[in-house]
Amino acid sequence: MKRIGILTSGGDAPGMNAAVRAVAGKAMAEGLEAYGINYGFAGLVAGDIHKIEPADLDGVIQRGGTMLYSARYPEFAHEEGQLKGIEQLKRFGIDALVVIGGDGSYHGALRLTEHGYNTVGLPGTIDNDIPYTDFTIGFDTAVNTNVDALDRIYDTAHSHDRTFVVEVMGRGAGDVALWAGVSIGATAIVVPEIDWDMEAIANKIKHNRANGHRSNLVVLAEGVMGADEFVKKLSEYGDFDARGNTIAHMQRGGHPTAKDRVLASKMGSYAVELLLQGKGGLAIGVQNNQLVSHDITDLFNSKHHAELTLDKLNNEISFY
Amino acid sequence: MKRIGILTSGGDAPGMNAAVRAVAGKAMAEGLEAYGINYGFAGLVAGDIHKIEPADLDGVIQRGGTMLYSARYPEFAHEEGQLKGIEQLKRFGIDALVVIGGDGSYHGALRLTEHGYNTVGLPGTIDNDIPYTDFTIGFDTAVNTNVDALDRIYDTAHSHDRTFVVEVMGRGAGDVALWAGVSIGATAIVVPEIDWDMEAIANKIKHNRANGHRSNLVVLAEGVMGADEFVKKLSEYGDFDARGNTIAHMQRGGHPTAKDRVLASKMGSYAVELLLQGKGGLAIGVQNNQLVSHDITDLFNSKHHAELTLDKLNNEISFY
Amino acid sequence: MKRIGILTSGGDAPGMNAAVRAVAGKAMAEGLEAYGINYGFAGLVAGDIHKIEPADLDGVIQRGGTMLYSARYPEFAHEEGQLKGIEQLKRFGIDALVVIGGDGSYHGALRLTEHGYNTVGLPGTIDNDIPYTDFTIGFDTAVNTNVDALDRIYDTAHSHDRTFVVEVMGRGAGDVALWAGVSIGATAIVVPEIDWDMEAIANKIKHNRANGHRSNLVVLAEGVMGADEFVKKLSEYGDFDARGNTIAHMQRGGHPTAKDRVLASKMGSYAVELLLQGKGGLAIGVQNNQLVSHDITDLFNSKHHAELTLDKLNNEISFY
Amino acid sequence: MKRIGILTSGGDAPGMNAAVRAVAGKAMAEGLEAYGINYGFAGLVAGDIHKIEPADLDGVIQRGGTMLYSARYPEFAHEEGQLKGIEQLKRFGIDALVVIGGDGSYHGALRLTEHGYNTVGLPGTIDNDIPYTDFTIGFDTAVNTNVDALDRIYDTAHSHDRTFVVEVMGRGAGDVALWAGVSIGATAIVVPEIDWDMEAIANKIKHNRANGHRSNLVVLAEGVMGADEFVKKLSEYGDFDARGNTIAHMQRGGHPTAKDRVLASKMGSYAVELLLQGKGGLAIGVQNNQLVSHDITDLFNSKHHAELTLDKLNNEISFY
Repeated sequence: MKRIGILTSGGDAPGMNAAVRAVAGKAMAEGLEAYGINYGFAGLVAGDIHKIEPADLDGVIQRGGTMLYSARYPEFAHEEGQLKGIEQLKRFGIDALVVIGGDGSYHGALRLTEHGYNTVGLPGTIDNDIPYTDFTIGFDTAVNTNVDALDRIYDTAHSHDRTFVVEVMGRGAGDVALWAGVSIGATAIVVPEIDWDMEAIANKIKHNRANGHRSNLVVLAEGVMGADEFVKKLSEYGDFDARGNTIAHMQRGGHPTAKDRVLASKMGSYAVELLLQGKGGLAIGVQNNQLVSHDITDLFNSKHHAELTLDKLNNEISFY
Repeated sequence: MKRIGILTSGGDAPGMNAAVRAVAGKAMAEGLEAYGINYGFAGLVAGDIHKIEPADLDGVIQRGGTMLYSARYPEFAHEEGQLKGIEQLKRFGIDALVVIGGDGSYHGALRLTEHGYNTVGLPGTIDNDIPYTDFTIGFDTAVNTNVDALDRIYDTAHSHDRTFVVEVMGRGAGDVALWAGVSIGATAIVVPEIDWDMEAIANKIKHNRANGHRSNLVVLAEGVMGADEFVKKLSEYGDFDARGNTIAHMQRGGHPTAKDRVLASKMGSYAVELLLQGKGGLAIGVQNNQLVSHDITDLFNSKHHAELTLDKLNNEISFY
Repeated sequence: MKRIGILTSGGDAPGMNAAVRAVAGKAMAEGLEAYGINYGFAGLVAGDIHKIEPADLDGVIQRGGTMLYSARYPEFAHEEGQLKGIEQLKRFGIDALVVIGGDGSYHGALRLTEHGYNTVGLPGTIDNDIPYTDFTIGFDTAVNTNVDALDRIYDTAHSHDRTFVVEVMGRGAGDVALWAGVSIGATAIVVPEIDWDMEAIANKIKHNRANGHRSNLVVLAEGVMGADEFVKKLSEYGDFDARGNTIAHMQRGGHPTAKDRVLASKMGSYAVELLLQGKGGLAIGVQNNQLVSHDITDLFNSKHHAELTLDKLNNEISFY
Repeated sequence: MKRIGILTSGGDAPGMNAAVRAVAGKAMAEGLEAYGINYGFAGLVAGDIHKIEPADLDGVIQRGGTMLYSARYPEFAHEEGQLKGIEQLKRFGIDALVVIGGDGSYHGALRLTEHGYNTVGLPGTIDNDIPYTDFTIGFDTAVNTNVDALDRIYDTAHSHDRTFVVEVMGRGAGDVALWAGVSIGATAIVVPEIDWDMEAIANKIKHNRANGHRSNLVVLAEGVMGADEFVKKLSEYGDFDARGNTIAHMQRGGHPTAKDRVLASKMGSYAVELLLQGKGGLAIGVQNNQLVSHDITDLFNSKHHAELTLDKLNNEISFY
C-alpha cells in the first residue's frame, strides 16, 4: 500500500478537518502518501484529487468545515458511478481509502471495498445518529454551540419571563436535543424517540411559573417539528409569551471542541492502522471509551440508540 | 437628592447590567442610595422596588440580560399610570431616576421629569436605532454574536458551495446587518434604508461563483423581510443551493463585549453626574467618541441614521 | 432523611454549580430540603449554612465558579473540627451530605460518614486526578479553555515562525496537558507520568522546521516545571525563538461545557439516590460511560491513571 | 499604477488579515493586481513575494494572525536594505505599497516613499500605541480576549475570596489595561502613564473586603512590571491571598471582533484610494469616528495618548 485517499461526504461536521489531518499525518508517518479527494464521491468520480502536502495540514486541526469539501452524490449508488470512481483511483494510484461522513457515505465505502479498494468509514456528523458508536465526530461541538446559544437565550428569557422553544438539529435523532436540553436545564426536551404530550409540557411551564421560575426553555429536535409550529400548538394550552427559535446551520461550523479533536485524531489514526492490516469495509466507532470497528454491513442492519435516560434525568432534577 | 431609582425597559440588551452597576456604583460613591425598580415602568407602578446593596453588584458587569428585568408597559403613556408611579417614588423616597432602554422608554422618562422627578435616559438596545448617539449599549455585543454565527455558517457554506441568507435583528434599522455584513464580507447586505434589487444580488452571487468563490452569505435585516421569504424570491433568479437562517433571540444575550461594558460604564456615571447637577429630561449618547446629552424632546423630532456607507464599502472590497 | 447538605471544597471547577443544582433539584423533587454550606468544611464548622430556595438555582447551571464558595481547611483532619461540624449538622437538622471537590475533600466525607452522617463525594476538579473515574467535573471545560488559548497562540506562532511552551494546570497529573496537546497537534506534550528528553524535543522542533512547519507548540503540564524554566533549558539545544506562556487561573472559570454540565447533572442526581438508599462513604465516578460508586477508602489505596496513550497518538499523527 | 504590494510588519494583530483582504479586494476591484510580500521588510528584501489570487482571500477576514507572516527586520533602517527592497519592487513591477503594522514599520514605509514608491501605513497592533489614531487594528480583539480571561478569573476569585493581579500587554502603553480594567470593574488599573501607589491599592482591596467584596482583580499593564513582582510588593501591605497571572500571547490571536474587522476594512479601502490619488508617506488613522491620514513624519514628532480618564471612571463607579 502506497497511497491512501481521503474524502468527506454528507453534511460537514466540526472535527472533519482534524480527522483528515490524523489520517494524512499518520499515513505520512508510515511512509505512505495521502491524497485528498474533493467533494466526496462526486469528486472521486470527477477526479478532483490532489496530493496532500505537509504544509496543507498546518492549522487545520482547529478549523471548522472540511478542507476537502463535501457534496451529496446519490449517483454513486449505481455501479456506473462506482466504476468511474475506481478508474480515478487507478489513475492516481490510490490503494485504499478513508471516508468521513454520515452512514449514507458508508454505502459508498462498502462498494469500494467490494471492488478491491479497502475502505474504512469514520462517523463524521453532528447528528450522532450512527449505530455502533457512542459519539460521532462533530457532535460535541454542535451540542456546545447550541448550549452557548441557549445560555444567551436564557439571558433574555429570564429578563422578560418568556418561554422559548429552541429547535436544534439531529435529523431523525434526538441526541443533540437531549444533551443540549440537560445542559440548559430545559423545561422539556422533545425528541422523536420519546412520546410526549403538549398538555404535560404546558403544565410543566405552569408549574415552573407557579414556583417563581418564570423563564422556560423547551429544546426541540428538528425531527419532531419546526419551532414555530410547536409554539403555535403550545399556545393552545396557555399564554406563555412563547417564541420559536431555530439555531440552524451555525451548529455545523466553528472550531471543534477538544473532545471532537481527540476523537477525530484517535479514529483517523486507527483507520490507517486497519488499512495497513489489509482490512476494509469497516466502520470505526467509540463504545464505552474504547475504539471499535464493525463491518459496515452490520451497521445497515442496526439502529442508533440515543441516550434516552437523559430526558428522565432532566425531569428528575429540573423541577423545584 | 438622596435616592436614585434605576429601571430597564423594552427589549433587554447585553451591557444593561453594566449600566445598572455604573449608575448604582457611582450613586453609592457619591453618598446616595440606589434603588432598583424591577420590570421597567410596570414595576414602578406596582412598587416592585428594592434597595440595591453593594453585594448585589458583584459580578454583574459581565452578565447578559438585566438584573432588573424588563417588560413592555404601554399603560405608562396615560397619566393615570404615571401618577401611580409617582406615588411609588414618594413611598420609596426616590428623588431622581435613570431609565435604560430603547427610545420607547424615553417617553416615560420625560413624563417623570415633567412631574418633578428628574430622569435621564440611557440608550440600551441591540438595534442601535436611537437618534443622537452613534452607538447604543448592547449593539456591539449583538453584532459580535452575529459575526460568530456567520463565521460558523461560513464554514459550512464554504464546505458545500452554498448560499446562505442570514436574517439578523435591528427592528426598522439596518445597523446590525451593516456591521455584521462588512465583518463577514457578505455578498450582499440588505437593509431597510437602502434600495436593493434581487436580480442584482443574484448577479453578484453568479459573479462570485464564476470567480471561484462558491460560498455566498447574504446578511438580511429583519426590517426588510424574513430569511425564508427572501430565499424563495432569490431562487427565482437562479439555483444557488440557498438556505435561510434566522439568528433570533440569542443576539439579545451573552456576556457583553468590552466596548459595551465601557460604554455602559461611561454613560451610567455621566447620568448620575447630570442628576447631581439637577438636570433631567435628557438622553445620553456618544457622538464622535464624546459623551453627549440632548433634550429627550429633541430625540422625538429626530431620526436615527445608520452608517450607510458601510454597504458601499462592502461592495468596494468584496468582489474580486 | 429530610435535609441534605451540599458543600464544595478545594479548587473550584466549572460545573460545580451544575452539580449543586442537580443535587438540590433532585432533593427537592424527592420532597427533601437542600442546605448549602458555604466555604467547604470551613463553613461547615463555622455554621455558614443556609436553605437553598428554588429561585437560588435559576441560571446557575451555566455559571463558572461555585455559588457555595470554597476554601482549604486542613483543620478538618482533626476530630475537634469534625465534631464542631457535626454540631452544626445537628443544629440545622441536616441528615446527609454531598461533597463536591478533589480527593482531598473525600477525607472529610469519609469522616462525616463515620460519625453517622452519610456523605457522598463528587469529583469536582479541573485536574482529572481522581481514581476510579475517567473524568472529573470541570476537566472538559478546562481543556477547552486551554484549547481556545492554544488556537490563539497558534495564530501568532504561525505568523512569526515561533516556538511556544504553554504551561497548563493539572497538579501532579498530565491529563489536561495530554488532551490539550492532542487537540492542538503539539510538537511535544510533557507530563509528569512519562519520561521525556529535552534533546528529543529539540529534534522534533528541528524536524518540523525542516519540513516547513516553522511554528511549534509544546504543551507542558505544571507538574513538570514552569514554562520559563522549560524555555531556558530548551534554548540550550537550539535557537527556536521560543516563548513561555502560562495559562494559569483562567482555566478554573467560565461557563462549563455541555459535557461537564451533563456529567455534573448525572452525578448529582446519582448522589441523592445513593443517600436515599441509606448509603454513604462513597465516591461517584464515571467509567466507560457508566456511573459508578466506590468506597472512598478504596480511592485512598488507588491511583489515578491518565490516558497516556494520547501522547503516543500525538506522536504518531503530528510529524509529517 | 498597476500593482500594489502589501506587507505586515512587527507583532501580528487580529484583523491584519481583514486589512490585507480589504487592500487586495479593493485593488482588484479597481483593476489593479495585488502582491503579497511575506515576512514584512525581510521578505521584501529577500523577494518572498507572490501574486494574491482571488481564492487566497476566501475566509481570511475571520482568521487571526497574518497570512503574509511577519518578522522584525531592523536592517531595513539602512539604505543598503532599502535599495535591495527597491530592486525587488522593480523585479515584481510593484508600483506602490500598503504596510500594516506598528509605528516601527512606518519608518520603512517612509523610506520607500522617499525612494519613489508611494507607501501608506495602516496601524496594526494590539497595543493601540500609535499617534493620530484613536484605535489600532487588533486592539478591540485583544481587549476582548483579556476580558474573557478576566471573566473566567473572576469566577475563581469570587469562589475563593482571592486577589488576582492580571498582567496584560500594551508595551509602553496602558490602553489594553485601561479598557480591560473598566470592563471587569477592576479594584485597580495600573498603567505606565499614571502615577500609582501600592499602599493606596492595598487600601482599596481592604475597603472592598470590608464592604463584602472579597474578590479583587488588579489589571496591570506589562509596561509597569511583571505580575509576580507586583504580587510580591503588594503582599508587603497585607495578606490578600494574591496570585499573579500573565495573559501573554493569546492576546495576539483569535478571530477578530466586528469592530476590528470593520476598522480594517475601512482603512484598507482608504489606503488604496490614497495610493490611487498618487499619495504616499501617509499613515491612516481613525479619530472621532472619522478616517484620517497624516504625514508619517508627523507621527514621529508626536505621541500616542491613552484615554486616561478611564482610570478615573473606574475609580468613580467601582467602590461601593
